[in-house]
Amino acid sequence: MKADDAKWYVEPVRRGLLHQIKLKSVVYSGRTAFQGVEIIDTDPFGLTLVLDGKTQSAEADEFIYHEALVHPALLAHPEPKNVLIAGGGEGATLREVLAHRTVQRAVMVDLDRELVELCRERLPGWHRGAFDDPRAKLAFGDAKGYLERAAAGFDAIVLDITDPTEGGPSLPLFTEAFYRLALSRLSPGGILVTQAGPASHGMAGAFTAICNTLKAAAGRVYPYVAEVPSFGGAWGFAMAVKSGELPSLTGLEVDRRIADRIATELGFYDGAAHAGLFGLPKWLRGEVAAQRHVIADDSPVFIDP
Amino acid sequence: MKADDAKWYVEPVRRGLLHQIKLKSVVYSGRTAFQGVEIIDTDPFGLTLVLDGKTQSAEADEFIYHEALVHPALLAHPEPKNVLIAGGGEGATLREVLAHRTVQRAVMVDLDRELVELCRERLPGWHRGAFDDPRAKLAFGDAKGYLERAAAGFDAIVLDITDPTEGGPSLPLFTEAFYRLALSRLSPGGILVTQAGPASHGMAGAFTAICNTLKAAAGRVYPYVAEVPSFGGAWGFAMAVKSGELPSLTGLEVDRRIADRIATELGFYDGAAHAGLFGLPKWLRGEVAAQRHVIADDSPVFIDP
Amino acid sequence: MKADDAKWYVEPVRRGLLHQIKLKSVVYSGRTAFQGVEIIDTDPFGLTLVLDGKTQSAEADEFIYHEALVHPALLAHPEPKNVLIAGGGEGATLREVLAHRTVQRAVMVDLDRELVELCRERLPGWHRGAFDDPRAKLAFGDAKGYLERAAAGFDAIVLDITDPTEGGPSLPLFTEAFYRLALSRLSPGGILVTQAGPASHGMAGAFTAICNTLKAAAGRVYPYVAEVPSFGGAWGFAMAVKSGELPSLTGLEVDRRIADRIATELGFYDGAAHAGLFGLPKWLRGEVAAQRHVIADDSPVFIDP
Amino acid sequence: MKADDAKWYVEPVRRGLLHQIKLKSVVYSGRTAFQGVEIIDTDPFGLTLVLDGKTQSAEADEFIYHEALVHPALLAHPEPKNVLIAGGGEGATLREVLAHRTVQRAVMVDLDRELVELCRERLPGWHRGAFDDPRAKLAFGDAKGYLERAAAGFDAIVLDITDPTEGGPSLPLFTEAFYRLALSRLSPGGILVTQAGPASHGMAGAFTAICNTLKAAAGRVYPYVAEVPSFGGAWGFAMAVKSGELPSLTGLEVDRRIADRIATELGFYDGAAHAGLFGLPKWLRGEVAAQRHVIADDSPVFIDP
Repeated sequence: MKADDAKWYVEPVRRGLLHQIKLKSVVYSGRTAFQGVEIIDTDPFGLTLVLDGKTQSAEADEFIYHEALVHPALLAHPEPKNVLIAGGGEGATLREVLAHRTVQRAVMVDLDRELVELCRERLPGWHRGAFDDPRAKLAFGDAKGYLERAAAGFDAIVLDITDPTEGGPSLPLFTEAFYRLALSRLSPGGILVTQAGPASHGMAGAFTAICNTLKAAAGRVYPYVAEVPSFGGAWGFAMAVKSGELPSLTGLEVDRRIADRIATELGFYDGAAHAGLFGLPKWLRGEVAAQRHVIADDSPVFIDP
Repeated sequence: MKADDAKWYVEPVRRGLLHQIKLKSVVYSGRTAFQGVEIIDTDPFGLTLVLDGKTQSAEADEFIYHEALVHPALLAHPEPKNVLIAGGGEGATLREVLAHRTVQRAVMVDLDRELVELCRERLPGWHRGAFDDPRAKLAFGDAKGYLERAAAGFDAIVLDITDPTEGGPSLPLFTEAFYRLALSRLSPGGILVTQAGPASHGMAGAFTAICNTLKAAAGRVYPYVAEVPSFGGAWGFAMAVKSGELPSLTGLEVDRRIADRIATELGFYDGAAHAGLFGLPKWLRGEVAAQRHVIADDSPVFIDP
Repeated sequence: MKADDAKWYVEPVRRGLLHQIKLKSVVYSGRTAFQGVEIIDTDPFGLTLVLDGKTQSAEADEFIYHEALVHPALLAHPEPKNVLIAGGGEGATLREVLAHRTVQRAVMVDLDRELVELCRERLPGWHRGAFDDPRAKLAFGDAKGYLERAAAGFDAIVLDITDPTEGGPSLPLFTEAFYRLALSRLSPGGILVTQAGPASHGMAGAFTAICNTLKAAAGRVYPYVAEVPSFGGAWGFAMAVKSGELPSLTGLEVDRRIADRIATELGFYDGAAHAGLFGLPKWLRGEVAAQRHVIADDSPVFIDP
Repeated sequence: MKADDAKWYVEPVRRGLLHQIKLKSVVYSGRTAFQGVEIIDTDPFGLTLVLDGKTQSAEADEFIYHEALVHPALLAHPEPKNVLIAGGGEGATLREVLAHRTVQRAVMVDLDRELVELCRERLPGWHRGAFDDPRAKLAFGDAKGYLERAAAGFDAIVLDITDPTEGGPSLPLFTEAFYRLALSRLSPGGILVTQAGPASHGMAGAFTAICNTLKAAAGRVYPYVAEVPSFGGAWGFAMAVKSGELPSLTGLEVDRRIADRIATELGFYDGAAHAGLFGLPKWLRGEVAAQRHVIADDSPVFIDP
C-alpha cells in the first residue's frame, strides 16, 4: 500500500452503506460555537466542507447542488430583486443568487459567523468574491428569528440549511410553521425553495415528508431531484410559491431566461436539465403522494444516517 | 460492535471511492467457466448478484435498471414483436421484455449457461418465471457470433451485458463494428439499446465514448440516465434506431403506450420519469458532444475502477 | 478489485482500532439461545469461530491460545487427574486437557449446548475427537451453579469463557466470589486458571483487574501473556493455586514434564516458551501491581471494545 | 456518525489483514528526497510517524520498540563506550543509547537529513534533546558507505532501519555481506543488533531469514521478540556478537546493570521482561532453526504486505 492510499474519510450515506473516500489531506479541523468543521481534500471530490461529520459541499460537484438549489426558483420568478438565503455558509448559494442580473439585494442569514469567515478565507472557489458584492448583505443569527422580525417583500427565499438531525440547528426550519412564516415574508408571486435531503430509492422518507409539509403550508409543492455524487446520490429539493402556481417553463424558455438573466456560465442547469430535474421516477412521485407526515416541532423528521 | 455489524462487502465505485456495504450473508459463492459469481444478501440493497467483484443487480433497485433498459426502446417502437437480448443472465431483462403484449418472441443469448441456471434457481424474484414463458428462447454462446449467423428481423436488440473491463467478455460488444452488426440485424425501424456504464459527474468517460461509438455506427444516438443506488449513482444507457429518428414521445403518449402494451405494473418508468431519463445535465450533454473516441477492438474503453 | 477482495470481516480490537480481515466465506451464521454464532473462513487466519461479533478462536493460531491456557496449569500440578473446564465450547481446551496422560476425568460445563454441537460438527480440527474420549464428560448449564453443587476434588479448573461484556453470560465468572467458589472446589494443591482478556499495552485494564481479583480470592496470582494474532495481540491469563505457591519450573523441568505427561506434539508451549509467557514487561507488572479493583457483581469490569 | 469518527488511517499488517486506525489529524504530510513522510495523530496510538505508508513509531508504544532494540545489546556488553546507530531518524534510539552512562560517543548515520530535521522539530517527545547531547554525532548518508570508511572500534552497532521492501533503501542492510562488514567494525566483544521485522505467527518469514543471515555472518544469532501494538503485533530483533558468545544474564543481573548504567527510568525493559523477550514460542524457534535462506543482494527478503 502506498502512502497515499492510507488515509480515508468514511461517511455513512444510508443505513448499511458507508462511503469510504480516499483522503489526501486535512486542510482544517476545528469547532465553532455551533458545529464541528473540517475542510478535507479528497481524491474523488477535491476540497470538501464537512460539518458534524457530514459532507456539505465538495469542489467537484458543488456546482450541481448550488445551481439546482437556486436557479429553478429564481428563473421561475418574473423578476427576482430581493432574495433571502437562510444558511448558505460557503457563499456558493449567494454566488448563484448574485449571478442573476435582476437581483438587487441578497441577504444571507447564517447562524455561524465563524463558519462563514472560515469559508470566506479557505474556500474562495465557492464564494468567488460573492461576499464582497455590494448587493450582498450578511446577517448572523437564527433565520427564524430574522424572518419573524423582517417585513414581507422577498421575491425568493432559499433555504440552504444543514439536514434535519436529532438536536441539529436546522430542525425548526423544516416545519410547517416555519414554512408558513417564510411564505408570509414573500412578496406576491414570491418563491420559496429548500434543499430537502436525499431522494435516492430507499432513503427518500425525509424528502417526501418535507415535500408534504411544504404542501401543507403552501397548498402545492414542486419537488425535484438532482444527483450530487459527493452526497451519495440523488438529492431532493422542494419549491413552493406564495400564491397561485409556478409557471411550467419549456426548455427553450429556461434557456432564454438563462441567457437574459444569468451573468455567469452555468455547468449543470439549462433547459434540458430542467426537464431532468422535474422528471421524478414513478416510485418517488408515488411516495411523495402517499406521504401524510406534516413536520412540526413535536413531530420532526430526521435524515439517517 | 454487534455481530451483524461485522461483515462488509466493499466495492470500488469510482477512483478513490469505495462502497462499504453491510453484508448479511453470502448465499452463494463460486465460479463458472467465465466468471466469479456471488450472491450476497446486504442490508441496504437485499439480495445482490456480484460478478467478478462487481454488483450486477440488487433486489432493492433492479427494477430501476431493468425498466430503464427495456421500456424506452420497446415503447418507442410501434409494435415490437421479435426481440433479442444479449446477456441478461438474471432473466429480469427478459421479464421486462415479455411484459410487452406485442412481443411474440424474445431470444436471450448469454455466454454463461451456468450463471443463467444459477440465477434461475436462486434469484426467482428477478426472472419471475420469464424463462418458462413460451415466447422465450434461450441460447448460450457469444452474442456476436449469434448475430453474425442470425437473419435480420429483430425489432429491438437489448444489450444487457457486463461492463467493459480489461480482458472482460463484453469488451467486443461495445465497439462500432459490433454496433454496425447489431443494427444490420434489426428490422426496418428497429431499435438498439445498450447499458452504457456509470454516468455520474466525474466518471462518465466510458459512457460518453459508448454514446459516441453508437452515434458513429447509427448516425444518431439517444443517451439517457437513471440513478441506480446499488450501482453507486447515475447509470447511462444509449439507444439508436436502424434508420431515421426516434419519435419524441410526450409523457402522455408514454403513459398511454404503457397502459396499452405493458401487462405488468411498473415501478420506475412512466411518462414523467421518461422526461427525467432524457433530461441530461448540461455538463453531461457537453461531455457527450465533445467526445471523439470511437471504440474499436484496438481502441477499447474500460470502466474504472 | 478482484471478487475475492470484496468481502471483509471487521472487528474492533481496541478503542479506535479495527481489524479489517479478508473474508473468504461465511460457513455458518445463526443464533443459539445464548448468542450469535458465526463460523467464517478468513484469508489470514482460516476458519474462525465468532460469538456475538467477537473472534473466539481461529484455525491458524488457536493452538497458541489453547496450549497457553491449559498446559502451564496442568504441568505445574504434580499429577492432575480430575479437571473441570468451564466454557470451552469448541472442544480444543478439552483436547489439550486430555492430552495429559495423568488426566482420568475431564468435565466440560458449557452454557450453550447448541454451540457445542455446532462446533463438534463443524470444527473437527478444534476438538479432534476429544468429545468422544471416554474420559470426557459434557454438562450443559451454568458453571457457577455446577460448581455450587459439585463436591471438591478438582485438581485443576480451567476457565475458558467468553470475555466479560456488559450483560454477557460470563460476567459472573470473573468475580472474587466466583473465584472463591472455584478455589473451594479444588483438591489440595489444585490450580485454577482463567483466560483474562487482552494484555497489550494500552488495553490491559480488564486483565489487571482480573489478576487483582484472583489475588484477592487466592492470596497470590500468577499472570502470564501470549500473543494470539487473531485476537489482535497479547492475551492475558491468570493462575492461582488453592494453597501455598506454584512451583517455579525451569525450562528443563517444563520440557521433561511435557515429554513425560503430554501425549501430543505441542506447537507453542515448551520450556523456552514458558519463560516467555511469564516474562511480563515492566509496565504490565507495574499496572498489575497498581490495580486496586476487585471485581464483584456490583463492580464489574468490561472488555472494550 | 460523529465528526471524529470519520477519518481513518488504514495500514496492511499482514496478508488479508488491515489495521483501520481512527485518525485525529494529519500533523505533517510531505516527501523528502528519499521517502513519503507523514506525522499523524491517531486515537489509539497518539502521534505516529509514517514512512511510505508504514508506521515507524508511535507515541504510545515507541518506548517498547526502542528499549527492546537498544538495551539488551548494550547491557550485554561490559562497558559500551562507542556506539553506532544506522538509521534511527526519530532520535529515540539515540535517546536510549545516550541513557547509558558508559557511552562516550554515539554516532547516528541516517540517509535522510530532511527526515531527521523534521523529527527533531516535530517529534520532541521522541528524541527528548538527544540530538543536543555533546556525545551525539550526526552523519547523513548511506550506513554501508559510512562503515566501509570507518575504522573498527564500535562497541555496539544498532540497526534501526526501515523494513526491507522491494526497492527500499534499507534492503542492502539486511544482507550477509553487510552484517560481515558491520561485525568487522566492532571492537572485540562488540555487539550488533538489528530490528528484524514482524515475528507474529504466520508472518515471521522475513524475521527468520534475517536471523539465519546474521547467523551465517556471525556464527551465532540471538533472536528476541517484543509486542509493539502499533506495529500490529510481535516484533523481532536479532543480536550477534563479534566473537564468542553473549553472556546469559539472569534477571537480577539485568536489573543490577540497569540500575548501575542507565540514567533514565525505563518503561518496558527490566530483568523479568528480559526473560520474556528471549522466551520465544516453540513454533518460532522451530521456524528460525529450519530457515535456510541467507539474504544477499541477489536473494533479498521482503516484508509483506
